[in-house]
Amino acid sequence: MAITLSGDQYGKAETHLVRIVRDTARHEIRDLTVTTALRGDFADAYLVGDQSKVLPTDTQKNTVYAFAKSRGVASPESFGLELARHLVAETAPVSGARIEIQEDAWERILVDGAEHDHSFVRRGTETRTVAVTVDASGEHVIGGLRDLTILKSTGSEFHDFLVDEYTTLEPTSDRVMATALEARWRFDPAAVAGRSGADWDASYARIRAILLREFATLQSLALQQTLWHMGRAVLIELPEVVEIRMAAPNKHHFVVDLSRFGLENPNEVFHADDRPYGLIEAQVARDDAPPAGEAWRTTAGGFA
Amino acid sequence: MAITLSGDQYGKAETHLVRIVRDTARHEIRDLTVTTALRGDFADAYLVGDQSKVLPTDTQKNTVYAFAKSRGVASPESFGLELARHLVAETAPVSGARIEIQEDAWERILVDGAEHDHSFVRRGTETRTVAVTVDASGEHVIGGLRDLTILKSTGSEFHDFLVDEYTTLEPTSDRVMATALEARWRFDPAAVAGRSGADWDASYARIRAILLREFATLQSLALQQTLWHMGRAVLIELPEVVEIRMAAPNKHHFVVDLSRFGLENPNEVFHADDRPYGLIEAQVARDDAPPAGEAWRTTAGGFA
Amino acid sequence: MAITLSGDQYGKAETHLVRIVRDTARHEIRDLTVTTALRGDFADAYLVGDQSKVLPTDTQKNTVYAFAKSRGVASPESFGLELARHLVAETAPVSGARIEIQEDAWERILVDGAEHDHSFVRRGTETRTVAVTVDASGEHVIGGLRDLTILKSTGSEFHDFLVDEYTTLEPTSDRVMATALEARWRFDPAAVAGRSGADWDASYARIRAILLREFATLQSLALQQTLWHMGRAVLIELPEVVEIRMAAPNKHHFVVDLSRFGLENPNEVFHADDRPYGLIEAQVARDDAPPAGEAWRTTAGGFA
Amino acid sequence: MAITLSGDQYGKAETHLVRIVRDTARHEIRDLTVTTALRGDFADAYLVGDQSKVLPTDTQKNTVYAFAKSRGVASPESFGLELARHLVAETAPVSGARIEIQEDAWERILVDGAEHDHSFVRRGTETRTVAVTVDASGEHVIGGLRDLTILKSTGSEFHDFLVDEYTTLEPTSDRVMATALEARWRFDPAAVAGRSGADWDASYARIRAILLREFATLQSLALQQTLWHMGRAVLIELPEVVEIRMAAPNKHHFVVDLSRFGLENPNEVFHADDRPYGLIEAQVARDDAPPAGEAWRTTAGGFA
Repeated sequence: MAITLSGDQYGKAETHLVRIVRDTARHEIRDLTVTTALRGDFADAYLVGDQSKVLPTDTQKNTVYAFAKSRGVASPESFGLELARHLVAETAPVSGARIEIQEDAWERILVDGAEHDHSFVRRGTETRTVAVTVDASGEHVIGGLRDLTILKSTGSEFHDFLVDEYTTLEPTSDRVMATALEARWRFDPAAVAGRSGADWDASYARIRAILLREFATLQSLALQQTLWHMGRAVLIELPEVVEIRMAAPNKHHFVVDLSRFGLENPNEVFHADDRPYGLIEAQVARDDAPPAGEAWRTTAGGFA
Repeated sequence: MAITLSGDQYGKAETHLVRIVRDTARHEIRDLTVTTALRGDFADAYLVGDQSKVLPTDTQKNTVYAFAKSRGVASPESFGLELARHLVAETAPVSGARIEIQEDAWERILVDGAEHDHSFVRRGTETRTVAVTVDASGEHVIGGLRDLTILKSTGSEFHDFLVDEYTTLEPTSDRVMATALEARWRFDPAAVAGRSGADWDASYARIRAILLREFATLQSLALQQTLWHMGRAVLIELPEVVEIRMAAPNKHHFVVDLSRFGLENPNEVFHADDRPYGLIEAQVARDDAPPAGEAWRTTAGGFA
Repeated sequence: MAITLSGDQYGKAETHLVRIVRDTARHEIRDLTVTTALRGDFADAYLVGDQSKVLPTDTQKNTVYAFAKSRGVASPESFGLELARHLVAETAPVSGARIEIQEDAWERILVDGAEHDHSFVRRGTETRTVAVTVDASGEHVIGGLRDLTILKSTGSEFHDFLVDEYTTLEPTSDRVMATALEARWRFDPAAVAGRSGADWDASYARIRAILLREFATLQSLALQQTLWHMGRAVLIELPEVVEIRMAAPNKHHFVVDLSRFGLENPNEVFHADDRPYGLIEAQVARDDAPPAGEAWRTTAGGFA
Repeated sequence: MAITLSGDQYGKAETHLVRIVRDTARHEIRDLTVTTALRGDFADAYLVGDQSKVLPTDTQKNTVYAFAKSRGVASPESFGLELARHLVAETAPVSGARIEIQEDAWERILVDGAEHDHSFVRRGTETRTVAVTVDASGEHVIGGLRDLTILKSTGSEFHDFLVDEYTTLEPTSDRVMATALEARWRFDPAAVAGRSGADWDASYARIRAILLREFATLQSLALQQTLWHMGRAVLIELPEVVEIRMAAPNKHHFVVDLSRFGLENPNEVFHADDRPYGLIEAQVARDDAPPAGEAWRTTAGGFA
């Protein structure tokens, strides 16, 4: 019996970069938290403590900041691609680079109805996410968002489910449905090379709008069904996306029993519970989607 | 020497209430997290375990839900007032009631440019806060917000400060200034009784806009100065507000030294640091502000 | 009508300092997160942006680190006192200094039953807290802890409480009682000057043990009663403490109804709920306690 | 081109169960947060909203509570196995069940040096984790822990690393090394069936002790090397473990430059930084480890 090492990966997590473009009086801002990870031939660092093939995580952080100046941040996707390509091309022991980015959005402060040139307020609750992987299999870009918190006060049903000896849930034809959606969509590798920052931003805005539209307009028979319709619509409308994965907590809103106080409660007063919550997942893909390679391998140690 | 009890206060914290108004197809939503606390003659519960004067915290929770139906939620301020008045008036041992509310805002999902009737997405990062106190001294309402995250990429200076043997900070005439503002404003008790839900909502919107405007437009010589201008403007423009208190973390954005890599960095690339951070406070009031009574006493046990 | 400034206070929050003593092979560690705040004549910084009386928060951070070397960290209380005395004595515009510290505890890793010399593992869930205030009224030290998470599986009752139209709670003579205690105790100012680091550590250990003992051994008729017994016992046994304040969330453990599945549940299976929770507060003091001055004024902007 | 569904999985997350054993005056406590997920033939729920094969997540929660009574909680691993076996065996559309559990540890309160019968205080900062998967490939159990926060004040080096144009890090032969370890170990499926609750508890205690011992005693040339030694030692000493995965943030402790204040700082005063941090991963396995099946597939939607 021998004991072997695999899956070694290391990097710098959560470098918080704010990039201002101030070429004119009207400034622009990008607010990124960047995690880099390198994959390659690092076994000697583990087995005998030899660092000669290890580019320090501190260097990776420096590279993030330097590239923010020298290359700029046209979009989180394009910035991640530039970092990953550099780390693979310029560092001999590195066979693959993984860049994970979250972007926090800002919008201009309105003063007397006019957008201010250099003052901003944080927008929305969702975070845009990017995961770029560059290795021998190609260039993989996964866009996404998390904590898109949405609720519909009607238009959701749940009934005719499987019943066993532990089932006490009552069926319903009208309930509140709420979630904090996480979604990640993989772009066609063949489409990655030619895209501009504006292209990436446009895809993000369209996908976000589609997800919201499907959630709002589908008469839902289950959160599962809603996820399927969200994912399918994205694939139908954006040819550059080949796969989408979603996880959605079912944030339960329980109708409070007010009959004890002589009051009716026809779906007007709810207790929004924290835990436990349902957790529904879905993966939707084109059947001709190109191979994902290590696109879905995270920096979380082989477990979530 | 004797040992004495004081400041006893108890209640139910963080009842998460979602109230839907569905009288028409166009639903309305209010999302409140409500904390209630009672003040009064509860010494026997502490000293000898006699609960005969103690209204259970479970009852307080029930009251929150029942009132959401029977009285509605015209605004968090008016809802807090109704709860506090009831608890004081109807519970003999209770001499004072404190209601703290945070409201999370939702906006309608846009589908093809039109607002949806019953589907919503969480808006913004700030939370609206309310603290109502009703007792023998009258009815006190404190409105507020927290986590209003704002940043200006220029228009902020800091120089000519006091220097001692431990001072190494360089003065600057151009820096990023960013904060997550917490502000709380106290209304004139004489103005409380007559206000409608719409009045409370209107005051909130105007104060938020003033705080943003002052932050954006003042050429700042210190975060202290910015806070003063914010607070003063609110008091000048809203006669119903008599006092405002603010706490503002100075969320440091450090210019990254890129000269090591042959790059200039004229305030374009920043490291957004987490900790430590400056913490600046200010209290601004009219000199004829009516007494606050226990309006500022929180439910945090005499310490924050 | 004039608008006035008051309560101005500013400082550096959450400087995370780790101090190692390595004079021998057996190292010692102190892990402190330090917040400093200055009170005094800073109105010009607010009103006109004049910083000439403002010692930068960056300088305050530097002072924390420098003192950790030059004075050492005999205990968080003594370290806070040294910082506060220095800031008041050496900075002319400063009339008062407030130092808040949280200490995270470490214990030695055991290797084959023996304590390791220089390797440590974080201990416990509670955090030790200190708040020192030095100003013209004297030297005030408040010790404390938070997140002392405790539970008793029997020995707790709650019945014979006040009932109104919204009361549905059932009385019980046997329930789980659980809390995450926050407590803060004020030392006699007359006793502060002469105490060593070892004295402060000894007081902390004794108070923690008393709080645990009272929680465990009292047959509780209410959380209020438990808090009173905890506080009173501390004052009886430690003459150097003149006042103690406590806040305790009542972390509800609900007996799950298993009768639907043909099972009894005599207080064996519980749902540990998150929110809402009861929140009980108590303040216990000697009736001859010296004045507190601004000892209880926090760095939280006049609100919690 | 067709659009297809895959990877559908759903369940109830974070059911917080507290189980008391009170057969004698000396009570026992288990505090588990349980997530269940079902895998199987649920496509109709997604595609057409047909719930006839969907066992509600509410039922899964009920099952957790009912089993806590009827089967007891001998250990989190054995409890997870019982749940998973039941869900697969008794629910026709279910082909696989995944149970994830975190256990928070309690220890008895000491009163005058003696362990109390029914009063407990939360222990430690780490959380014990379990992930059980039962499906056609067998029974897979992964034990683990997270947030095991450890620090060594010497005995750690980092030098002779790869240097590029963005490298500014100085090599060191003596630094603080600190991490909050997450580790997960997979048991030999062949060993699962016969193990008792006491066996699972014993394995956990031994592995935790080995991880601490290796961290403490290895003169480390890199966190990578430390992880390797930790993992290898577990595999050598516990024949029932076939694989271990680890992720370790390198929690940087920076030596503060005190020379500006005329002070030396020979590794005594550190700034403990929050972000960014290094993130080091390792997977160590026997080369004859049986197949893992879906043992590593989490409930996180195909992404972490």
